[in-house]
Amino acid sequence: MVEEAPYLSIAQRKRAQRASSIPPSWILPPSALPSPLPLNLLSLPLTSGFLTPLEIAITSTHDVVSLSSLIRARTLTSETIVTAFCKRAALAQQLCNCLTEILFSSAISRAKLLDDEYTRTGKLRSPLHGIPISLKDTFKIKGYDSSIGIASLAEKPAEENSLLVDILLEKGAVLYCKTNVPQTLMALDSDNNVFGRVLNPRNTRLTSGGSSGGEGALIAMRGSVLGVGTDIGGSIRIPAMCNGLYGIKPSSQRVPYVGQESAALPGASKLGISASAGPLATSLRDCELFLQAISDSSPWERDPFISFAPWSSQGSLSSKPLIGILYTDGITTPLPPITSLLTSVHQTLQSSTIDTLEITSPALKKCQSLANSFFSIDGYSHIFSLLSTTSEPLIPWLSTRLRPKPPISLENLRELQAKKTELETEMLKIWRCPKTGRTVDAIICPVAPHPVPPVDRWNGVGYTSSWVLMDYPAGTLPVRDVVEGDLAGEVDESSPPLSNWDKANRELCK
Amino acid sequence: MVEEAPYLSIAQRKRAQRASSIPPSWILPPSALPSPLPLNLLSLPLTSGFLTPLEIAITSTHDVVSLSSLIRARTLTSETIVTAFCKRAALAQQLCNCLTEILFSSAISRAKLLDDEYTRTGKLRSPLHGIPISLKDTFKIKGYDSSIGIASLAEKPAEENSLLVDILLEKGAVLYCKTNVPQTLMALDSDNNVFGRVLNPRNTRLTSGGSSGGEGALIAMRGSVLGVGTDIGGSIRIPAMCNGLYGIKPSSQRVPYVGQESAALPGASKLGISASAGPLATSLRDCELFLQAISDSSPWERDPFISFAPWSSQGSLSSKPLIGILYTDGITTPLPPITSLLTSVHQTLQSSTIDTLEITSPALKKCQSLANSFFSIDGYSHIFSLLSTTSEPLIPWLSTRLRPKPPISLENLRELQAKKTELETEMLKIWRCPKTGRTVDAIICPVAPHPVPPVDRWNGVGYTSSWVLMDYPAGTLPVRDVVEGDLAGEVDESSPPLSNWDKANRELCK
Repeated sequence: MVEEAPYLSIAQRKRAQRASSIPPSWILPPSALPSPLPLNLLSLPLTSGFLTPLEIAITSTHDVVSLSSLIRARTLTSETIVTAFCKRAALAQQLCNCLTEILFSSAISRAKLLDDEYTRTGKLRSPLHGIPISLKDTFKIKGYDSSIGIASLAEKPAEENSLLVDILLEKGAVLYCKTNVPQTLMALDSDNNVFGRVLNPRNTRLTSGGSSGGEGALIAMRGSVLGVGTDIGGSIRIPAMCNGLYGIKPSSQRVPYVGQESAALPGASKLGISASAGPLATSLRDCELFLQAISDSSPWERDPFISFAPWSSQGSLSSKPLIGILYTDGITTPLPPITSLLTSVHQTLQSSTIDTLEITSPALKKCQSLANSFFSIDGYSHIFSLLSTTSEPLIPWLSTRLRPKPPISLENLRELQAKKTELETEMLKIWRCPKTGRTVDAIICPVAPHPVPPVDRWNGVGYTSSWVLMDYPAGTLPVRDVVEGDLAGEVDESSPPLSNWDKANRELCK
Repeated sequence: MVEEAPYLSIAQRKRAQRASSIPPSWILPPSALPSPLPLNLLSLPLTSGFLTPLEIAITSTHDVVSLSSLIRARTLTSETIVTAFCKRAALAQQLCNCLTEILFSSAISRAKLLDDEYTRTGKLRSPLHGIPISLKDTFKIKGYDSSIGIASLAEKPAEENSLLVDILLEKGAVLYCKTNVPQTLMALDSDNNVFGRVLNPRNTRLTSGGSSGGEGALIAMRGSVLGVGTDIGGSIRIPAMCNGLYGIKPSSQRVPYVGQESAALPGASKLGISASAGPLATSLRDCELFLQAISDSSPWERDPFISFAPWSSQGSLSSKPLIGILYTDGITTPLPPITSLLTSVHQTLQSSTIDTLEITSPALKKCQSLANSFFSIDGYSHIFSLLSTTSEPLIPWLSTRLRPKPPISLENLRELQAKKTELETEMLKIWRCPKTGRTVDAIICPVAPHPVPPVDRWNGVGYTSSWVLMDYPAGTLPVRDVVEGDLAGEVDESSPPLSNWDKANRELCK
């Protein structure tokens, strides 16, 4: 008799536990859904009959800023808002498989307490008071797992909160669910053996992105108004792109990342490049509100890695801004729809009062390889050891990409660091116009060299990971959907591909 | 016939070159000096007959702030000031052996140009316009060596300036000499085979400290009004203590350190703990002026390691400040003169309007060992390879302490980094009064657990290196000389030593 691999029974228990955390009255019967299911799931919660008109109104159109003002004005209670988002998140989970840990019951209790506190004191703790916030599974909440889709990390409830969780609770936020991720966090599709794959609710044939892919799908489904993700190669910005959201990856020393589960041993994050935590949201002002709330908590007093940087509003620019446009990183030429979209952004800026400058940098094309080298310095030894404990295999996409190898030597790491400093120094030049000497205020570039691809076809992360290597703040802004006119261009097949990434990218067009 | 080791002829040529860079008319004949030489050399330049009353006035009592106002008011020219300091530095070199590279001639030419510029434009580039500044030998000035007391690095003139040198030149500073250091920079006495040992001009039997020991001696001799040193274990603060000066080690991401010679391969500084560059001076306001001038140059636009942190004046404290007093690090009990001095500082504060709080931290006693582990991660392979090229031996103090060993593994480095984060997090607690929750504004602690010792007897750097491990800004403030009354206390020999450092420390009292 062949014994079942231990990871399978863990996955079964975790999925059962998750299902049982949704109140039975919120479970969608097949009759509430069209058959077959459409590729686009976004409207299904509205037509399911499970949400009241008020719940639809609360969850469909508001952002944190407007919800917070309704709480302040006592137009809505936190309990009403939190319940509405719990319910819609439950529907999103059943349609997109976007959640891991579900805390609906304790969240609604907490919302009531926060309402009482406001009634009693007349004071809101912050603009996050009473607001439901979803968290990527990596964040630890005392008493709940942070399994990040690895069976051997499951059924080990956290003994303490991540610092960011403490801060959000102090600020009055209501934490009500954690969201699904790729196994090991090192994939761009949020698929794992414990919880399964997150579906992209805008088109279930396409990827929802990763590693904060559960956040992306949940917020696109309006099952969350604001979520917190993490990003070391594009893991906030890629799901934001896939799901039409705003997503900000701050520089690493801004938002506390400490105390998360990341399938790495303590200290490992200090050897290579540093991940950031940051918001995914439906409005830019919500991203700003979140970042300001965190900064206002003086996180540098509790996390030694955070810079002392009190929030200062940027105000208006003193002169005409200069916006850099980066059409290509020099190793993967964006496909025609991306270039078309970027061109139309460029033209829109040019026809306004904003000056633009086309940015190129020979250093940029070296960034993706270097970032990849940093990602693998330990030879994945800890990850493979975690998987072997429960005989868990790699997910299909990783199975052809991740192989155990020896850790690099101290001398190799020194060489990588030297190369990094060299590229960082070279890249500083992109912030100044070579002709006029003017400072570039911001740079617009693609999130990826291709539109949102089918599942397991994301190709290369140079357009996102390079800004982690540089530790620049970077974010995804939704511009518009790709339209038929964007598809008109053709890949210039007469020129040889610039790299293997470029070759794979061209394949996406075929 | 035994061949002479190559390092000896290099040293001979370097010393001859240095001697020939001093104008013959500034060479002290034996008749100008008392015989035998006193232990305290400070007054010898004044009695040598080599300085005019104006030169004595310029060099003896002014700081940069007052000299700069005299230049601005056209009371003095830069040429007059620079010449005076060149001359006094020449005397200091002959008495204390504090210089390595001498640029007097080009410095005086540059001073004239800066005077002309001021006459022509009516504008000073900055408060450093026309001010002579000395630099530790580690800083690269195009065309001059940065041998840092290692023969194999000599006779290899720099091809470009360190970034800080460029910034100082842009700000109008006049660079006129570089100062002596310990071989490898990893000793607390500035002694090496190329240039010999720096003497402490306050008492030639005592150490001048290191590794910025030449700076310390030069400024104590008033052969410089402001010097730039570097510090990774105490290398600014220790010579400042030995020579009765102010010395500030900023956090590492403030003053550009990049482009120096530090006997390390590129990238090595990113693996462990980070050195800082900072000022040694005769007044606190000069330290502030220097740090502001560097910040005002927007160094973050040229060095990716520097934080964006525009200078903001601290202004007055909003409430009564709370000053922490740290009497011991828990591994080396300060000797009675140090405790006596700290007690009198504490009492002075208590009798003023300033609140004090005694600081203890169990984490602090773990810092020195961890810092030492970081210092040796590469097993000194590059240093030993540099020395072997010219058959150069270690200096006596290092010869019993530095041994080649294998570099540590990536896994070991990860463990060190994890330990560092753990200590950093624990140490954040010292900034808050456990009883009242008040924030501690600053902490006063000894620079060393002993007064300035005889040469080659410095013991332990925990009181300085711990703040590098934490990357806190830290500085030496001269309080007063040790007086006879400070010697009254006795070491409590009934208790066993806390550590080997503590044991060695007690030996200093015998």
